[in-house]
Amino acid sequence: MLIDGKHYRSIQRTDDLHAVQIIDQRYLPFEVRFERIDSWRGMVTAIRDMHLRGAPLIGAAAGYGVWLACEEYRDLAPTQFSSSVATAVEALAAARPTAVNLRWALHRVSEVMAASSEPSERTRLAAAEAQQIADEDVEVCAALGRAGVPLLSAIHEKNPDRPVQILTHCNAGWLATVDYGTVTAVVYEASRVGIPLHVWVDETRPRVQGSLTSWELSQNGIDNTVLCDNSGGHIMQHGMVDLVLVGTDRTAENGDVANKIGTYLKALAARDNGLPFYVALPSSSFDPSIPNGVGGIPIEERDPEEVLTVRGLSDGSWSRVSLYAPSTRAANYAFDVTPARLVSGYITERGIFSARELKDALGARTE
Amino acid sequence: MLIDGKHYRSIQRTDDLHAVQIIDQRYLPFEVRFERIDSWRGMVTAIRDMHLRGAPLIGAAAGYGVWLACEEYRDLAPTQFSSSVATAVEALAAARPTAVNLRWALHRVSEVMAASSEPSERTRLAAAEAQQIADEDVEVCAALGRAGVPLLSAIHEKNPDRPVQILTHCNAGWLATVDYGTVTAVVYEASRVGIPLHVWVDETRPRVQGSLTSWELSQNGIDNTVLCDNSGGHIMQHGMVDLVLVGTDRTAENGDVANKIGTYLKALAARDNGLPFYVALPSSSFDPSIPNGVGGIPIEERDPEEVLTVRGLSDGSWSRVSLYAPSTRAANYAFDVTPARLVSGYITERGIFSARELKDALGARTE
Repeated sequence: MLIDGKHYRSIQRTDDLHAVQIIDQRYLPFEVRFERIDSWRGMVTAIRDMHLRGAPLIGAAAGYGVWLACEEYRDLAPTQFSSSVATAVEALAAARPTAVNLRWALHRVSEVMAASSEPSERTRLAAAEAQQIADEDVEVCAALGRAGVPLLSAIHEKNPDRPVQILTHCNAGWLATVDYGTVTAVVYEASRVGIPLHVWVDETRPRVQGSLTSWELSQNGIDNTVLCDNSGGHIMQHGMVDLVLVGTDRTAENGDVANKIGTYLKALAARDNGLPFYVALPSSSFDPSIPNGVGGIPIEERDPEEVLTVRGLSDGSWSRVSLYAPSTRAANYAFDVTPARLVSGYITERGIFSARELKDALGARTE
Repeated sequence: MLIDGKHYRSIQRTDDLHAVQIIDQRYLPFEVRFERIDSWRGMVTAIRDMHLRGAPLIGAAAGYGVWLACEEYRDLAPTQFSSSVATAVEALAAARPTAVNLRWALHRVSEVMAASSEPSERTRLAAAEAQQIADEDVEVCAALGRAGVPLLSAIHEKNPDRPVQILTHCNAGWLATVDYGTVTAVVYEASRVGIPLHVWVDETRPRVQGSLTSWELSQNGIDNTVLCDNSGGHIMQHGMVDLVLVGTDRTAENGDVANKIGTYLKALAARDNGLPFYVALPSSSFDPSIPNGVGGIPIEERDPEEVLTVRGLSDGSWSRVSLYAPSTRAANYAFDVTPARLVSGYITERGIFSARELKDALGARTE
């Protein structure tokens, strides 16, 4: 998508084809710092230290990471090449231990490379497969975006005198994928075909991903307003929202949706106010191995410091401020699970489905 | 309540009886700064610039403010005394334009003073009435606390093996009243009679009043854990909450509850998880002149800067950090209204009531 009017992917090979360019997202929304990564070790650091984030983007990064390892070792003998690349793959797999897409991408590139034993050919295969993973992610997001447009156009037709009012939570944006995003793919595509839109962006404490969502929407010409996470119920009660649209980290077989903490509260408010609540669900986030989300999806607890402190810009420099007295105790649950009964539908790259239709429509994960 | 083991009211006359001592709450929870206020102008500043906050506390402060004006002018002739005090009363009334308790307290002191025309006698009457307002607030909070205890003891009896788990939002604490608080009065009294307790404290963005609640609970020996506002639904889903207990800025005749933004979302989560949701309601916050809260209670919109930035301590100094890119737009609704249908009951200084019983139990506001 656009940054200062120019198109980028969140990850792409550099023009010289010797390295990978990412956006070091730790400095957003205040600074756009592109980072050139020319070694697999650099990619491990970028994944581990969250220069990039978002399951699809991490998957693409892992794929490129294997390719960078191949480039580094391509002049070695086949056996040495294989063991060196295997070391790199292990390090990449360990960079974010819970990221399913990461291991899926590593597995996929490794499988393809098995077709040859010759280092330069294996390197070529890795490059092509890494590129394919990234390209497929772009295609999936684009298709998901197109699938969601009819929902928004139906709202617009009913109420043509005002922009369609969407509430979203966290960042299911292009910055979490290779391009377009999931929630934002629907928004960008709807806007492209001429549907007037306004997005209410939840702050999304503790990590304030709302600042990324607001920034990327503004960069791409989408009118938006940020809100504290507490505000969603109030604006729904007062007719200021037409549709709630969120992403998902993992959706269970029964349609229960694990997503950023606080999503469940917005689903409840949508239900109480008779508003549609939709989930943007690329099929890679559907996990039919988990029958029931509320009971079955483990919820990560993160460092309480994310709750007790906030990082932002003060007089032009990054600063972290404490909000609580010393020795205050905090809990930091990263995700919650929204029961399928609160979900109006799932927007996927293959169309919009109900919870009951998901398993047939998306099937088992291709691993 | 206690600060570092010593008892204070949030506002009280100094030992020499010539001034008023408050806690300048702008520095909490990092610094306890007592402020000596010895003029009505000082009290206007303290109210206007939010050295103190909370409707009951603002009412008490206004009463003491009239007394300070009387002390300043007591040597004037009766006519000059009256006009000078009237000027002070007007300035106090304008210090926080929407605070109902403020005007109620000013009216009450002025009425009592009308019994005499002699400045020194009028000063004595003002002093006594201001003190009476503060003392009554303490009594109301203490009675409300006692009224709520049976709720908590019933939960404790059913599940004696763990502390009663209470979730609260914002600060309905002693810092918002003269002593005890409303929600916290129930907590402090239940703890005093031996019920084991743990309080989940919502952060309460944008102004992070959770930091006050956590601080005062810790100072008074109550086990507590802070959470982002997004977390309440998740912990209710996982059996970690027994009761939601919140305060109210104003409750309408039908029982609809205006309280800090985000309260409504917690009420929805309580309902969805079959948990009791109670409101601590001193009768002074019941407003039978408003038949319907959702439609009838105006919701203040505050400065978007409160959303776009956060203030905290960085390396020992206060600092305000920006969370969003320049020119990001934000909305800042200060309150929301929880419909009476989501409220299990109202804990008042006269007992616990249902929405239907409120009007008979609390009657019209005594003004």
